[in-house]
Order: sequence, then C-alpha cells, then structure tokens
Amino acid sequence: MAVLLALDFGGTKHTAGVVAWPFADKKPPAWSNLERQNSMPEANADSDLDIMFNLARKVLEGKQPAAIGISFGGPVNYTKQRVILSHHVPGWNNIGLGELFQDEFDCPVMIDNDANMAAIGEYTFGAGVGLQSLMYITVSTGVGGGIIFDGNLWHGVNSMAGEIGHTVVDPNGPLCLCGKHGCVERLASGPYMAQDAVKSLEKYPEKGSILRQLARNNPEKVTATLINQAAELGDELAINLLDRSAYALGVGIGNAANLINPNCFILGGGVTKSGDRYWREIHQAARKTALPQVHFEILPATLGDDAPLWGAIASAEQCLSSPS
Amino acid sequence: MAVLLALDFGGTKHTAGVVAWPFADKKPPAWSNLERQNSMPEANADSDLDIMFNLARKVLEGKQPAAIGISFGGPVNYTKQRVILSHHVPGWNNIGLGELFQDEFDCPVMIDNDANMAAIGEYTFGAGVGLQSLMYITVSTGVGGGIIFDGNLWHGVNSMAGEIGHTVVDPNGPLCLCGKHGCVERLASGPYMAQDAVKSLEKYPEKGSILRQLARNNPEKVTATLINQAAELGDELAINLLDRSAYALGVGIGNAANLINPNCFILGGGVTKSGDRYWREIHQAARKTALPQVHFEILPATLGDDAPLWGAIASAEQCLSSPS
Repeated sequence: MAVLLALDFGGTKHTAGVVAWPFADKKPPAWSNLERQNSMPEANADSDLDIMFNLARKVLEGKQPAAIGISFGGPVNYTKQRVILSHHVPGWNNIGLGELFQDEFDCPVMIDNDANMAAIGEYTFGAGVGLQSLMYITVSTGVGGGIIFDGNLWHGVNSMAGEIGHTVVDPNGPLCLCGKHGCVERLASGPYMAQDAVKSLEKYPEKGSILRQLARNNPEKVTATLINQAAELGDELAINLLDRSAYALGVGIGNAANLINPNCFILGGGVTKSGDRYWREIHQAARKTALPQVHFEILPATLGDDAPLWGAIASAEQCLSSPS
Repeated sequence: MAVLLALDFGGTKHTAGVVAWPFADKKPPAWSNLERQNSMPEANADSDLDIMFNLARKVLEGKQPAAIGISFGGPVNYTKQRVILSHHVPGWNNIGLGELFQDEFDCPVMIDNDANMAAIGEYTFGAGVGLQSLMYITVSTGVGGGIIFDGNLWHGVNSMAGEIGHTVVDPNGPLCLCGKHGCVERLASGPYMAQDAVKSLEKYPEKGSILRQLARNNPEKVTATLINQAAELGDELAINLLDRSAYALGVGIGNAANLINPNCFILGGGVTKSGDRYWREIHQAARKTALPQVHFEILPATLGDDAPLWGAIASAEQCLSSPS
C-alpha cells in the first residue's frame, strides 16, 4: 500500500503526518504516523527545513511517499510553488519549497498557504464535505481565508485570493498595520483585540475588573482567550471588545456572501473558540449585511488546528489524480 | 450557415440581434440583423414578451436559430433558467423565460441577468479578451456585477454572486433601500447621486451654481450625467458628489480584489462615462484598499450598452459547445 506525506510549517510548530493511500472518500483516514516539533528559539528557514526533513524521514520510516502536500504559514506563490516569505521567520524569501521536497523524495509535491490548505482540508474531510463552494476563514494572529468554487481552490492571479482580513468594514475604524483603517483583521484578530483591551484598561481604570483579575494586572498577559473568558464572566469591557470583533467579522462575511455567494463559511482559528455570544453576533452582522436572497451557513471548522495538515493530504492525493 | 439569436430584455428597451455562426473567436462578428424597440408605456411581462417574440421573428427572417442567449434586466435563477422578478416591470415573478423561447424556437436557450451577460460579453468579445478572470461592474441605476473565474461565470449557489452594489463600504454612510448604511450602490449609483445632489442643493443655497444652471433650477432634472457635466465645469458640490461616488466604488473594488484577486475589473454603465477625475479617484481608492501584492487593472467596458447582447451571443454559442 502506498503512503501520502503531509507537512505543516507553522509559525512556531512543525508537523509531519503519513496516511496509507488509497483511503475511503470524505473521511479523514487515521494517521499511520504523526510527529510534531517546535521550531528553534532563533528559527530561520534553514533550521525549519532541517526539522521538517527529519520529521518527514521519521514518519515515513523508510517508505517512499506517493505524493507530498505541504502547508506553509505565510504567503505562497502557488503558480510557481514557491514560498514568498514568512512574516515570522527570516530566510524564507522566495524559497522553492516544492522543489526541495520533490528532489529529496522524488515524488509530486503540492504546496500552498495554510488558509488555503485548511479550506481544502475542511472541504475534503471536515465541515465542508459535500458542499459545492465554501469560504474558510481563520481568525487567529491574523485573519485569512481560502475559497473553494465547484470543488477547486480559487487562488487568484497573484495567489492572493481569500484576503478577507484586509477588506475594509469601517473606514473610520482604527489603523491597521497594512495602512488602512477598519480592516476585518484590525478589528477581529487576536493580537489587535488584546492591544485594544490593554489600551481600554489604561484609559478606563474603573472598568474591566474581571479581565484585570484574569490577567493578574499584567497587560502583557491579556490575550483574546482571556478576553473571551472575561466576557463569559460578564466583564463589560471584554464583552464590548468581543462584540466588536464578531461584528467586524460578520460584516466581512456578509460582504463576501454578496460578492461570491458560497454555500457556507467555515470559521477556524483560536479566536473562533469564543462562546455563543460571539457566534451569535457574527451570524447577526453577516445576515444583516447580506441581501435576503443570499443564503449561507456559518459553521465552526471541525478539523481544528490540523485542518491545514488534512488539506495537505487532500492536495497530495490531487497530485496523483491530476498530474501537473 | 447557422445563426445565433441574442435577446436583451432591458428595463425600458428590448433588443434582438442575429449573427451567422460559426464566427472567428475573440472578435465580435457583425450583426446580420439588429432591432430595438422601447417597451410599452404601461409595460408588463406579457407586453414585454410580445415585443420580444416579434423582434425575434423579425431579425430571424424565417431562419431557425441554432441557439438563443437571453439577457434579462433583473434577478434570474440561473440553475432553473427562470426569471425571479423585475424591479421595474410587473408580472415577471417566477417566469420560465428560457422554456418559453425553447418551446417557440425549438433550440437550446441560455438565460442570465444583464450584469452576468455583460461580463460574458466583455470576456468573450470586449475588454476582457484573453484574461483568466475578471469582474464586470455596471454602475447605472443600480450597481451590479458578474464574475468570471478561469473562463466560467461564477453564479453562486443562489445565482446571487457579483452583488458588489450591496457590499458595505461605510457603515456610517447614508441609508440604502436594502436597509443597510453605506452600500456601494447607495453611494455610487446614478439615482442616489442625483437624490443626494438635490438634497445638497436645498441645504446649501449658495453652492452648486453650475449644477443649478445645467438643471435649469429644476431638481427633477438633476441626473448623474448632469452632475458629471457640472463637475467638469468646476462645480464643487458636483465634484464632491462624484468623488464620493468614485471613492465608494473604488473601496468596493479594492475589497473585492483582496477577496477574489482577479486579473481585471471592467466598468460599464452610464455613470462610468464620467471624466478622468472620476476614474482617477476610483483607481486611487481601489489601489489604497487592495494589499500591495494584489495586482489588477481597472478598464472601461468596450462593448457599451450592447455588452449584455454580446454576452447572450457568447452564451448561445456555449449551448452548442456544451449541451446541457
């Protein structure tokens, strides 16, 4: 029996997994082997690659993979199968990641960014099974997305499609690192939520007592997770921040629904693990923004943090059915 | 030689055209026959259909068409090939327009809404020839769009894709008929521009002297065309309105570029016949809204008001190459 190899280059953690192939459609097969390793303290592209080659050899146990799928946590030029850069780790500029693994393992390789791979993963094995079209959105340190039309990932002409995080939902909103005001990412992503929480705590010493307690009065400990916890305990400052985050994401989803009218939006990433109120706000804002004739569902991702890895498996399989 | 029939049900004018087929690719063939007729003063679906059947028979001159493409100026259920409704003419609710013409002329028929047909027209014969993907946007009484990915029109699951007019670009903007604030259509479409111009003229009696003159002091004569003329003559009130319209459209385009990253946006419809300043504002706002890595062009449509009719010809031809 042949095997497929899936690799996930994360910002701080790398994962390699192997499954036997062929497997039954629409069900995530069991991992034959799965290994994870954190990246080095002063990671660069070389150390990341070292770790990943070792992980790959380890999970393969001497087997030759039939195909490899690779998820990369940063922008990828899909057409050229090259990493454009990493926002977190130096040395990744313009690296032919596909070719490196192709040369080493002598088999077809497909690379893509993590949001696109997660979209493929959820479409093939997760919340999107059986749908014609979907948009996967990850809300975490950033807000990114991947769009599937008629079963195929739409990359766009510059491999940039899916950047819902940098669509503007409030031109009077706060300034985003991208230079615009009121991007979805500026309002909905974890680090920006934490940053705004800290500012509010400074500005309103009488507010946010629960959040302060949870963070032990240390601004550096404030995270989106803590904001969610504080909100669930009734902290108004935290509730407002979470509502604003959900609202911005909801408007972004509603706008995307009007534009591309997919069956479904699937939400993954740490921030989306927030509670019922957060999800309700997203639904309401999206429904209010989309035209009444535009129907869609908003569902939580079911593959969790391994969605990109499952997308890598699905992509590896695609290499075999449609050789490029 | 066979012939293809194209029909365009407009809000106030109907058109039928015939071309000989096959024709050379990528060039609009000459019309063998082309007839236009205004709709009746108290038009309804029946009177529209009467006019169109007569026009069709007239341009066909007794020939049997190999296929028919039909553009309809209102929402169409593409999957069912039925008109959903007309926003302008009563009696069009849930009409099986495709079937009516199929029964009458005994040949394959393809119907779609006018924005989608215009997108197909520009892709096949106009500004979009040779591109992989594009979004066509019409800015006229409304703001609508059609999206082509890899040569195929993307309809969305409810035939609603392309509704850029009802994406929100300013939640603090004026109220749109759709119930939201600051939709692209609310800020950029002709009638809303005229409505806002009239309000401004009332509010600021000392402003807009050129626009007042052009409209002969009659608010009912204010149109987007007059606003553009006044702007070109230096009327500040008109310039501000035109800038706001262009800015809103530009932000909508930039958001769409981030989301679907097509090669090109092609703009048609009356309002886009405004001058250089209007186009420059659109470019600037779109470029500022899109991420630097997202590349695109914004081009004027080249087929003018006949873009939907050319899309109908291209769709008729598609019926023959891919029988459904």
